[in-house]
Amino acid sequence: MLDVDILRNNLSDMAEKARRNGLQFRPHFKTHQSRKIGEIVREYGVSSITVSSVSMATYFAGDWEEITIAIPFNTLEIDETNDLASKQKINLLVENWETLNFLNDKMKSSVGIYIEVDTGYKRSGVPFHRVDILEKMATFIQDSEKLHLKGLYCHAGHSYNARSEEEIQQISDESITRLSNLKREMTRSFPSLEVNFGDTPCCSVTENFGEVDSISPGNFMFYDLAQVNIGSCTTDQIAVCMVCPIIAKYPERGELIIYGGGIHFSKDRLQTNGMEYYGLPVHVGNEKRGTPLSDSFLISISQEHGIIKANAEIISELEVGDVIGILPVHSCLTANCMREYTTFYGDFYDHM
Amino acid sequence: MLDVDILRNNLSDMAEKARRNGLQFRPHFKTHQSRKIGEIVREYGVSSITVSSVSMATYFAGDWEEITIAIPFNTLEIDETNDLASKQKINLLVENWETLNFLNDKMKSSVGIYIEVDTGYKRSGVPFHRVDILEKMATFIQDSEKLHLKGLYCHAGHSYNARSEEEIQQISDESITRLSNLKREMTRSFPSLEVNFGDTPCCSVTENFGEVDSISPGNFMFYDLAQVNIGSCTTDQIAVCMVCPIIAKYPERGELIIYGGGIHFSKDRLQTNGMEYYGLPVHVGNEKRGTPLSDSFLISISQEHGIIKANAEIISELEVGDVIGILPVHSCLTANCMREYTTFYGDFYDHM
Repeated sequence: MLDVDILRNNLSDMAEKARRNGLQFRPHFKTHQSRKIGEIVREYGVSSITVSSVSMATYFAGDWEEITIAIPFNTLEIDETNDLASKQKINLLVENWETLNFLNDKMKSSVGIYIEVDTGYKRSGVPFHRVDILEKMATFIQDSEKLHLKGLYCHAGHSYNARSEEEIQQISDESITRLSNLKREMTRSFPSLEVNFGDTPCCSVTENFGEVDSISPGNFMFYDLAQVNIGSCTTDQIAVCMVCPIIAKYPERGELIIYGGGIHFSKDRLQTNGMEYYGLPVHVGNEKRGTPLSDSFLISISQEHGIIKANAEIISELEVGDVIGILPVHSCLTANCMREYTTFYGDFYDHM
Repeated sequence: MLDVDILRNNLSDMAEKARRNGLQFRPHFKTHQSRKIGEIVREYGVSSITVSSVSMATYFAGDWEEITIAIPFNTLEIDETNDLASKQKINLLVENWETLNFLNDKMKSSVGIYIEVDTGYKRSGVPFHRVDILEKMATFIQDSEKLHLKGLYCHAGHSYNARSEEEIQQISDESITRLSNLKREMTRSFPSLEVNFGDTPCCSVTENFGEVDSISPGNFMFYDLAQVNIGSCTTDQIAVCMVCPIIAKYPERGELIIYGGGIHFSKDRLQTNGMEYYGLPVHVGNEKRGTPLSDSFLISISQEHGIIKANAEIISELEVGDVIGILPVHSCLTANCMREYTTFYGDFYDHM
């Protein structure tokens, strides 16, 4: 179930933050993967978007000014990418010479290139202190016929290790200082260089964007329990919940068995006070969902079953055949498993 | 990628074990969810199958004598179930009175009922020592017009906590003793009662099936690293692997970045010697995959990226643009994410 009102609040907050900080807002669509939600996003002044795969860019093609495919380019997808680039303005992410040379040889139409910069996450990206490499790459792109230099792209994903607003702020400040220094250094030779920054924890918490030009958070539209745990949001801001039928009940064990498992939620989990859980139960009504039920956790999931541990009062209120809502640990993966949304207004929204 | 030769070996071993123990073989199709693989399974003498949802039963309907939907019946799916039961012989799982009464009221055509028994897993099922409840339920079903008593169904899923063949054997022996005692007690009043037992670890390891009549393991067709970890199989028996492009390379960190993440693998993980991992890298050729590369692990996955930690020799052999295979931790969830198979013979197999 999607709560469109919460989605709109999340969008409005982030769009307003971008506006007051003079940032372009190029939200990431990997969380919702929905054309219908894309139409709502457009109402908040968005014209260019970010995605995480060539197939996702293809799904959204035609509706947006620019689509950035924010994953180091996979050379095995060159044919699909050339097809796409012939009809949609796209930007690719590059962070190594092999791929840069490959694209320079194989791209048939013009394509924007962001160089991925790593400010400390250590997943992909040219390390921020390697200005030498970044400048050589930027020069190469500038001199290329088909490749067009967009700028630098940074996903400070180590913000996901934070466990408070303060820790997020620290990681954000450090990354933004590093990016701002880089931009000041590189714009001497590359004056139109744009710096894109985009992870939900940092973009949710900070008001200090330094020299950053654009942001591309994605998860913030739905948020989830992982973001609550990091310190990015509160449970009130979570826009999706899974509605699961209760299929068995064990009051003596304090447990409800739901029809809802790994193929519905995926398997991300959290730990609080030694309790490992895969979601938090909430009541769901016709118009909205409630707040998390006290002392209640989805403690285990197998392929299609889940086990909720709950206090005696909650157990006694619920019967086999009732439904219960579950706030997901990781909304992106849960949405990707379910591939459809129902809103509290009774509408069905697509998922690619 | 699906290695059909390994799949056939796994099927042949289990079918032969069923045959020599005089068991009906009603394999679970939740792992592969494929009609094409179903056709292969049929070659091993299978005529009735097990699934985990009404939608999965609907997908396979028409091709099988009986389909057992092995999850406590979800009363919200009564309409779909009545539709299905009008054209396909199905069996449902029941473990509480609410559902039993509901089915007795609402089923429009004849349906087989297994009562789920819990021999110690503590997920769903009537506890094995509650012979009183089991006999009352069996009597109720026997007296019902639409419900037809099939027997007892047990998934001893606590075998997934085992970490050696010996531990699996212990859990299997305990469950089978409990089921055999139950059957001896109940067949006095219910002479045609069938006892179904079916989890991959127990069915892979034991040769002692006591009074069990039929088995319904599913994961054994593909196996996976979780089953290796439990003690059910060796890595040679894993029939699927994910082929992932290498999109970045960090020799100084001993890491390769692959295009392959949570939306491809789901997020089950294992731990060995303090190392947490989401898969094991293997080489893949045109005809088959290799054995796990030494000291190499898929140590982290985000939505679409994965990080492989590997030794220097392996890193030096692989380049950006190459592909690498990954043996999955949980093949059911990985197959469910990917929804298609390519065989090493170049064929495409469906997934519902």
